[in-house]
Amino acid sequence: MIARLAIDTDGQGLHVITDQLTRLIRSEFSGDGLCTLFIRHTSASLLVQESYDESARRDLEVWLNRLVPEDDLLYTHTLEGRDDMPAHIKTMLTAVSISIPIVDSVLALGAWQGVYLWEHRHGRQQREIVVHLSA
Amino acid sequence: MIARLAIDTDGQGLHVITDQLTRLIRSEFSGDGLCTLFIRHTSASLLVQESYDESARRDLEVWLNRLVPEDDLLYTHTLEGRDDMPAHIKTMLTAVSISIPIVDSVLALGAWQGVYLWEHRHGRQQREIVVHLSA
Amino acid sequence: MIARLAIDTDGQGLHVITDQLTRLIRSEFSGDGLCTLFIRHTSASLLVQESYDESARRDLEVWLNRLVPEDDLLYTHTLEGRDDMPAHIKTMLTAVSISIPIVDSVLALGAWQGVYLWEHRHGRQQREIVVHLSA
Repeated sequence: MIARLAIDTDGQGLHVITDQLTRLIRSEFSGDGLCTLFIRHTSASLLVQESYDESARRDLEVWLNRLVPEDDLLYTHTLEGRDDMPAHIKTMLTAVSISIPIVDSVLALGAWQGVYLWEHRHGRQQREIVVHLSA
Repeated sequence: MIARLAIDTDGQGLHVITDQLTRLIRSEFSGDGLCTLFIRHTSASLLVQESYDESARRDLEVWLNRLVPEDDLLYTHTLEGRDDMPAHIKTMLTAVSISIPIVDSVLALGAWQGVYLWEHRHGRQQREIVVHLSA
Repeated sequence: MIARLAIDTDGQGLHVITDQLTRLIRSEFSGDGLCTLFIRHTSASLLVQESYDESARRDLEVWLNRLVPEDDLLYTHTLEGRDDMPAHIKTMLTAVSISIPIVDSVLALGAWQGVYLWEHRHGRQQREIVVHLSA
């Protein structure tokens, strides 16, 4: 089964999608299986990470911004803006697809795990994640 | 089919799980299919890497420790220990899920590939990997 | 269903495999499903990235080469050549497996996404990707 999640973003950062995904599975799937997420973009990515403490997520963002700064003289691909090439690199270092088992109709996330879309561009974006559910 | 691997770790490093996984597949699956691993933690991750030469694995660990040191002044999330925030970052840079095809009842790993749980914390931890097997 | 892609490489860089994959799916699969790629190597990896502008791909390569240079004094695993340990690290930072949904017999890639094998060694290599297709 294929579904789509549409997510509007307004600036860089981690957008939680755990609840949206949980509702989708509750309404569309039962039993054991596998949920695979695929993001259809090259400047936003997927992450499963700490959902409890906001400071951990903020440190992830700040750390990655320091590793991949804007205005690096290395970049030749600059036509689409200062944040574009860093966005491609950050996407490369994180995930374009993630698979999470479903056990007894529920995503088998650990106690502290949440699912995130990581927006790497500054401006407003409409993002799409394709979700594949199977037994 | 869903199975679980429980792995007790005692300090940072790459814990090989190839044999455990091979045994699981031998007893639970036959034919062609897909084996998906998902780790239920935010401070340990999954890796498929060089299984032959221990020095390659050691260099991976030392390199990642240098890229993501403890005591970085950037970290604000420090309550859970000096190794906690680096563990989240290392998990972000590696994998939370990996899918490996099964060909004729055997994992289709390359000649030099092994499957590893990468523990990023110092202390003893009980880790859990959920395994999904399907045709 | 399991298939294999054989790719001969001749030096570092991103080798596009989107068309090869598209042809495979056209001839072997119909309907909705999931395509999972797994690369059987520890010094080459998989990437879904910007397919339109070559400068973005070139910047990704140059950036990663700067982050993971050859001749780093840290490396002890040097017997297989100057490019070997950097190749393992680059593989660790990118993907060994990627899953892409198939919608109506077509890979659900975004408008700007292409699928790449990333060769991290200098010399000629014969690389193999195992492809799993399922509903």
